[in-house]
Amino acid sequence: MIQLTRLKSKLAEICDLKGAASVLGWDQQTYMPPGGANARAEQLATLEKLSHEMFVSAEMGELLEGAAAEVSALAYDSDEASLVRVTRRDYDKARKIPPALVAEIARTTSLGMEVWVKAKAESNFAVFQPILQKIYQLHQALANCLGFEERMYDALLDQYEPDMKTSALEEIFANLKAELVPMVHALSDKLNSVDGSVLHRHYDGQKQWDFGTEVLKRFGYDFEKGRQDKSVHPFTTSFSINDVRITTHVDENFLSSALFGTLHEGGHALYDQGISPSLERSPLSAGASLGIHESQSRLWENPVGRSLGFWKFFYPRLQSIFPDSLAPVSLEAFYQAINRVQPSLIRVEADEITYNLHIMIRFELEVDLLEERLKVADLPAAWNARMKDYLGIVPSKDAEGVLQDVHWSHGLIGYFPTYSLGNLISVQLFEQAKAENRDIPSQIERGHFSGLLEWLRTHVHRHGRKFLPLELVERATGSHFRAEPYIDYLKNKYSEIYLT
Amino acid sequence: MIQLTRLKSKLAEICDLKGAASVLGWDQQTYMPPGGANARAEQLATLEKLSHEMFVSAEMGELLEGAAAEVSALAYDSDEASLVRVTRRDYDKARKIPPALVAEIARTTSLGMEVWVKAKAESNFAVFQPILQKIYQLHQALANCLGFEERMYDALLDQYEPDMKTSALEEIFANLKAELVPMVHALSDKLNSVDGSVLHRHYDGQKQWDFGTEVLKRFGYDFEKGRQDKSVHPFTTSFSINDVRITTHVDENFLSSALFGTLHEGGHALYDQGISPSLERSPLSAGASLGIHESQSRLWENPVGRSLGFWKFFYPRLQSIFPDSLAPVSLEAFYQAINRVQPSLIRVEADEITYNLHIMIRFELEVDLLEERLKVADLPAAWNARMKDYLGIVPSKDAEGVLQDVHWSHGLIGYFPTYSLGNLISVQLFEQAKAENRDIPSQIERGHFSGLLEWLRTHVHRHGRKFLPLELVERATGSHFRAEPYIDYLKNKYSEIYLT
Repeated sequence: MIQLTRLKSKLAEICDLKGAASVLGWDQQTYMPPGGANARAEQLATLEKLSHEMFVSAEMGELLEGAAAEVSALAYDSDEASLVRVTRRDYDKARKIPPALVAEIARTTSLGMEVWVKAKAESNFAVFQPILQKIYQLHQALANCLGFEERMYDALLDQYEPDMKTSALEEIFANLKAELVPMVHALSDKLNSVDGSVLHRHYDGQKQWDFGTEVLKRFGYDFEKGRQDKSVHPFTTSFSINDVRITTHVDENFLSSALFGTLHEGGHALYDQGISPSLERSPLSAGASLGIHESQSRLWENPVGRSLGFWKFFYPRLQSIFPDSLAPVSLEAFYQAINRVQPSLIRVEADEITYNLHIMIRFELEVDLLEERLKVADLPAAWNARMKDYLGIVPSKDAEGVLQDVHWSHGLIGYFPTYSLGNLISVQLFEQAKAENRDIPSQIERGHFSGLLEWLRTHVHRHGRKFLPLELVERATGSHFRAEPYIDYLKNKYSEIYLT
Repeated sequence: MIQLTRLKSKLAEICDLKGAASVLGWDQQTYMPPGGANARAEQLATLEKLSHEMFVSAEMGELLEGAAAEVSALAYDSDEASLVRVTRRDYDKARKIPPALVAEIARTTSLGMEVWVKAKAESNFAVFQPILQKIYQLHQALANCLGFEERMYDALLDQYEPDMKTSALEEIFANLKAELVPMVHALSDKLNSVDGSVLHRHYDGQKQWDFGTEVLKRFGYDFEKGRQDKSVHPFTTSFSINDVRITTHVDENFLSSALFGTLHEGGHALYDQGISPSLERSPLSAGASLGIHESQSRLWENPVGRSLGFWKFFYPRLQSIFPDSLAPVSLEAFYQAINRVQPSLIRVEADEITYNLHIMIRFELEVDLLEERLKVADLPAAWNARMKDYLGIVPSKDAEGVLQDVHWSHGLIGYFPTYSLGNLISVQLFEQAKAENRDIPSQIERGHFSGLLEWLRTHVHRHGRKFLPLELVERATGSHFRAEPYIDYLKNKYSEIYLT
């Protein structure tokens, strides 16, 4: 397999460059002094340029042809056949995008970010409107280059969620919305029955940090193959399967920030640490998609980390660490506090139920803008109308509405839906794991997670990027991706909290 | 200047790759979890391979030709003419080394390191002998590829100290040795007149750290453009002129470790932070040589940091931080303690006087081995004989003698002399600075360093790699590189401490 060997060696070098870029990105957000910013931008741009050039080279195309012939007799899910298949898909997509368009998008979104900062500070959508329009035009051009069979939005979605279709998302989100919107309206009278104020007491930062470390270790996160640091925005990054790092943000006056942030990033990191070592230094050594990756972070954060069983074990421990704040608060009251529902304007502050409605608003508006059923000029009005319909509240200014997220200024169109996909898939996987290993819930009540982790390692983690996201869900659960498990999960959980 | 512009842009990308590699190296020694080691080695190897390939390409040669013609009318010390001149020199050297030889040296020294660890642990030179022999043979081959006019050792020395000649070093070291050996023997009766035990009391680690930070800030080290972290072996690394980082090692039972380590690395970092911004992202954005770089670290560590004037300002401050250990100790006693002379077996523990004798032993043996006046098998005996001659002591085992340093196993031959060059040049520069700005000593007594830093910035730092090391010394001091200032400095300082 001479061609395959040469292909692997070329791809390994590209992985090294991407790994190096990830180290530089990690440093940038954790320890880099302010003066380092300009040089760092140049270094990252050069690494990106070189790895892109190496990947789209004609030589790579020839190696892929040759290797495809060599692996044609191998099993579909073998490392070798998967490597060639997935890389071929990446290569064909990468070759379709003209470098001039990449450069123009980079220039525009780099400028867009600055414009967005100004527009948000002034809460003035008119400032952002022209460049957002340009960003949409460029992404229409991008979608046309990438090509699509049915819907223009498919081409953009495919960058983050390979092979996912807009029409499938619309269908599944419609189901979800039909359940969630009435649920939110039904709960709106009962919001005050749950008190979340306990989360806003004072919690020593170092003690929060130590508690998070303890939970991570119990989850199975390996500190010999990773570490946790502090950053403004928490993130997970991976330089190899054996060096997967997370960050967290500690707020001494809000317990949830570091706590659930750590569980969330821990979930991402368990995925990256669990990829098969045989995929190291290859393009398969990553998550299957953003949605699948988010399913792992959400699973440990919500179905596990916001469950009563989890806190049966950990709450006495947390009480002993913070007796002043928590001794007077019962397990049940704490459990309710961390699951409090509150329709709010800001996505990143939203609870488990309303979060998905924030995402749907963005998804629906993105599709309408791209497919020209909505004009950018009309975006704020459309935003506010949907907020009123889905959440029953309307922002008083655009900074708390349509201007709240940085993502569109970066050119991230087709990206938001992956957050809700993650929520949906997290529960579908969790239910399957529990169906196959009925000991998991009682393990969690005893602070043991090996049953769950082992199931995820076997059915999700080890495969890396071998399979398309929906293919992976089907292989793992034996059924199509569907919204019902998630809807049932929310209904059961929140009816118990709010309706009893 | 089209060719020059293209040349600069290619070189900038190579600098980006080297900067990225430096970030990876920094992380490796500060925060990387153990699991990260294998992938990190691959990433560094790929960055090294790509930047080397980019540099030795035929295209680079053509750009250098074209640019040379374009800058021919510019001043010798202009950024542009210097860039082309220095890069041409680097390019010609790099093209002379066959990739196969580079690979064989890399393989052998990678293995050599492991063999050395074993040999040192067993204190058995016979274990190390065969591979050291191989390393010398490969370096003879390397020297022959690089070429030399007079002495084979010149070719290796030139890698670390461009254009320095073995014969010049022999002459200058002979002068130095003629002074130092009698000095050491004369002092040997008086060693007990100075008590160094105060340095071995207990000193809180955080307080040591904070004091070091305070001194660094007073020196002029800019924490907006750098940071200090902890590592096993202290080092300075630079990712750009505006991101120059240092590390230190804190020992709670030995004050000198972090204290003088921090002053030393701070000196290196002031050099890198002081390079002209116009040289950023070019091969000129680095120190002129290892010797010149060491002159900067040594200057702040020894002539400044171990001077009585320096401690007139800082000692009361240090006493107030560590009253239990230091209140009973006078300024004079502390000054003597930090300048205590003690002939010892281990280079890295040596004082200012004996340190250079350790270096000379290595230099003389390296030259004799390379030029085949000494056999590797006879190295331990030759080592011990010189130790007796120069320092009056003999190691009882090779682990404390010829096997003590890792450097030869890495293939660092021609490297050790740069340490003594740094000592010599540090004083020559310091004397010149004081001659031109007579306020410097009194500034230092008041904890001010701007006069000294400004002189160094003007005459040394800003030039980066524009000039050859001896050329730089001559431009800065108006005289040839010479040993006399250093000899006078040692004589004056130590006769005062030991002979009064």
